[in-house]
Amino acid sequence: MTTASIITIGDELLIGQVTDTNSAWMAQELNKAGIWLKRRVAVGDNREDIRRALDEESEAADIILITGGLGPTADDITKPLLCEYFHTRLLINEEALKNVRHIFESVLKRPVTERNLKQAEVPEACTVMQNKRGTAPGMLFEREGRIFVSMPGVPHEMKGMMTDEVIPFLLKKFKMPFIAHRTILTAGVGESALADHIQAFESALPVNIRLAYLPGYGMVRLRLTAIGNDAAGTEAEINTRFSQLKELLQEWMVTDEDISLQEAVGRLLKSRGQTVATAESCTGGYAAHLITSIPGSSAYFVGGLIPYQNDIKEKVLQVQGKTLSSAGAVSEETVREMISGALHLFGSDYALATSGIMGPDGGTATKPVGTVWIAAGNRSKIETRLLHFRFDRQRNIELTATNVLNLLRKFILSTP
Amino acid sequence: MTTASIITIGDELLIGQVTDTNSAWMAQELNKAGIWLKRRVAVGDNREDIRRALDEESEAADIILITGGLGPTADDITKPLLCEYFHTRLLINEEALKNVRHIFESVLKRPVTERNLKQAEVPEACTVMQNKRGTAPGMLFEREGRIFVSMPGVPHEMKGMMTDEVIPFLLKKFKMPFIAHRTILTAGVGESALADHIQAFESALPVNIRLAYLPGYGMVRLRLTAIGNDAAGTEAEINTRFSQLKELLQEWMVTDEDISLQEAVGRLLKSRGQTVATAESCTGGYAAHLITSIPGSSAYFVGGLIPYQNDIKEKVLQVQGKTLSSAGAVSEETVREMISGALHLFGSDYALATSGIMGPDGGTATKPVGTVWIAAGNRSKIETRLLHFRFDRQRNIELTATNVLNLLRKFILSTP
Repeated sequence: MTTASIITIGDELLIGQVTDTNSAWMAQELNKAGIWLKRRVAVGDNREDIRRALDEESEAADIILITGGLGPTADDITKPLLCEYFHTRLLINEEALKNVRHIFESVLKRPVTERNLKQAEVPEACTVMQNKRGTAPGMLFEREGRIFVSMPGVPHEMKGMMTDEVIPFLLKKFKMPFIAHRTILTAGVGESALADHIQAFESALPVNIRLAYLPGYGMVRLRLTAIGNDAAGTEAEINTRFSQLKELLQEWMVTDEDISLQEAVGRLLKSRGQTVATAESCTGGYAAHLITSIPGSSAYFVGGLIPYQNDIKEKVLQVQGKTLSSAGAVSEETVREMISGALHLFGSDYALATSGIMGPDGGTATKPVGTVWIAAGNRSKIETRLLHFRFDRQRNIELTATNVLNLLRKFILSTP
Repeated sequence: MTTASIITIGDELLIGQVTDTNSAWMAQELNKAGIWLKRRVAVGDNREDIRRALDEESEAADIILITGGLGPTADDITKPLLCEYFHTRLLINEEALKNVRHIFESVLKRPVTERNLKQAEVPEACTVMQNKRGTAPGMLFEREGRIFVSMPGVPHEMKGMMTDEVIPFLLKKFKMPFIAHRTILTAGVGESALADHIQAFESALPVNIRLAYLPGYGMVRLRLTAIGNDAAGTEAEINTRFSQLKELLQEWMVTDEDISLQEAVGRLLKSRGQTVATAESCTGGYAAHLITSIPGSSAYFVGGLIPYQNDIKEKVLQVQGKTLSSAGAVSEETVREMISGALHLFGSDYALATSGIMGPDGGTATKPVGTVWIAAGNRSKIETRLLHFRFDRQRNIELTATNVLNLLRKFILSTP
């Protein structure tokens, strides 16, 4: 198989102020294209370390993708080093220069500086990839059958360049095997229980089909990957295995497509021509954010209320004062009344509700941090669940949102 | 300086289904402790690749931190390989075994399986670090003055182990220099304009003080790091430089602490004993999520409405039907009325509002995708801004939320 390695350049990655989201995205795109990512390395803005990475990674892989180190305030290390590495020199690229001027004059409407103009300099020996989204051009080098690509580290600039130029180039350059993926998203079952449940299935897989467990936020995604030389045969093979897997996991399956839970919920609502509203206390808008992160969600999301203070629960959602004083805000009674209130306020077909103690403070002896009530319902029925988490605030919020979306999904499915 | 390298093990990182958030967190902790992270490498669940990474990274650094490859469904590669690498064998660790049983019996309330019990096996030659948050124990090895630590990849398990055991051990083992950091968060100015503005300051910095530019979501964080042998001298030195930098950046400074914008807004409200509410159309709850992600935000966040559909804007927020039909939902008039409606509905001191077209669909000739109106105000005054973004939906949502929080911050500061 054709192999790749990613080198990410930047001190900011090594002092931990930035989370590297580029690598995961690039890994996905390479994987889809049939290229096997062997390694990923991050190094600082340091000549010697970058050089060592170039040497090591070109031993490991056919394709070396480099991101970062091209910004206007980077210490001007990467480009001169690439020149040295490929025995060439820096020259102004006219098209890149035009692009820098255009971005400053027409888009940013700020005067262009010397520092910005220098971004149009590229090594003479490279193939220039123009950057439609920013000022730093990409650079492609070939040496001894290996491809080196240097791209800016800004995520949307790198993504545009990968999609428009790099992947199409690589697909032409290398002969790729056929790769097929199938994905199942499960909820309500742990990774090791899943593994035990499908042990026989897994050990019967042929060598060209791999199974990956991808846990996240109380859900586990299972991914089958088949590699073959002929498309029809490989597709047929993975389809058979995928049907077996779906059969085995029926009980916990959220979706058999490579989409998120919120996208699955959205498709379900859209296909039924129905709508939902949210009433979130402890999740503070995060469930609504997940729903509205899907393009086109305005077709089925009416709106949401975040009644963070109890008097808003009473005044706007019509939760009864005596429910709040007797059962408390974090109670089954409260989330039930929140559902009814949201259905009334928004006029939606369904509603979801959350109320809990996310921490680190606010816990009591009977309701410790991590105690959460969630609900989903319509005008005729309301389902509730009591959850207990033991994580940090951020994770508690994310897990609660995921759980309530899944409760909603199951509620919709159970509704005729 | 003492140097470290991180090796992350797991096929899931190389097919891109998981974003590596562990490394950034570990990098921060190492940096705070005075350890210089030189490299980060990710490799798959593959014997040869892990072995190569161990060899290469121990050439590069004093401390090698390994995460992942210890889960119950990992292919049992990492632990046997560590045994071979350190010439030792696997043995059951009694305390780890007790922990696995305890977690299954008391916490998860699920039967413990053979697969889980195997997690209590550790190489005989290592120092075992118990895992209080999960089933896989950590393992620490010493060889030729180098430290190797193998930890689980589950973020909260790894974090607990780093904080409780690894960092204290390393601080005892190695002599660290004194390190001081100072951070300024700026908004409303680009990275290269900033760099030009402080060019003289930057080039006058002594070699033991570094300046890092950390851009994100329309803001740039600047971080000064000073390294020295004596605490008092280093602190004095960085304080002088930091004062100069703050003076230079006055106009754009959001906060001079290492906190997020939402935390800065929260502190401001708390110090004034005032409250805020949100009315979010296009951001779909994301601004409220940012506000409520801060512990203790219930002291100043009353609640929020997400009037995704126009009739909710009218019915619940009292935006006038004729405003929506003449100026449109994405207009200055609408966000103004949303502010008034939110102040009335929630009874808060301040409110923020957003309305825009996040894409990829919904744009028109006069209001293309990326057109956004934001507002912040109180009962006597409302400030609005028109923004234009040209990114994807997710980034447009995040940038809008960041911009409206900063508009709110400036509005509060300008209010007597």
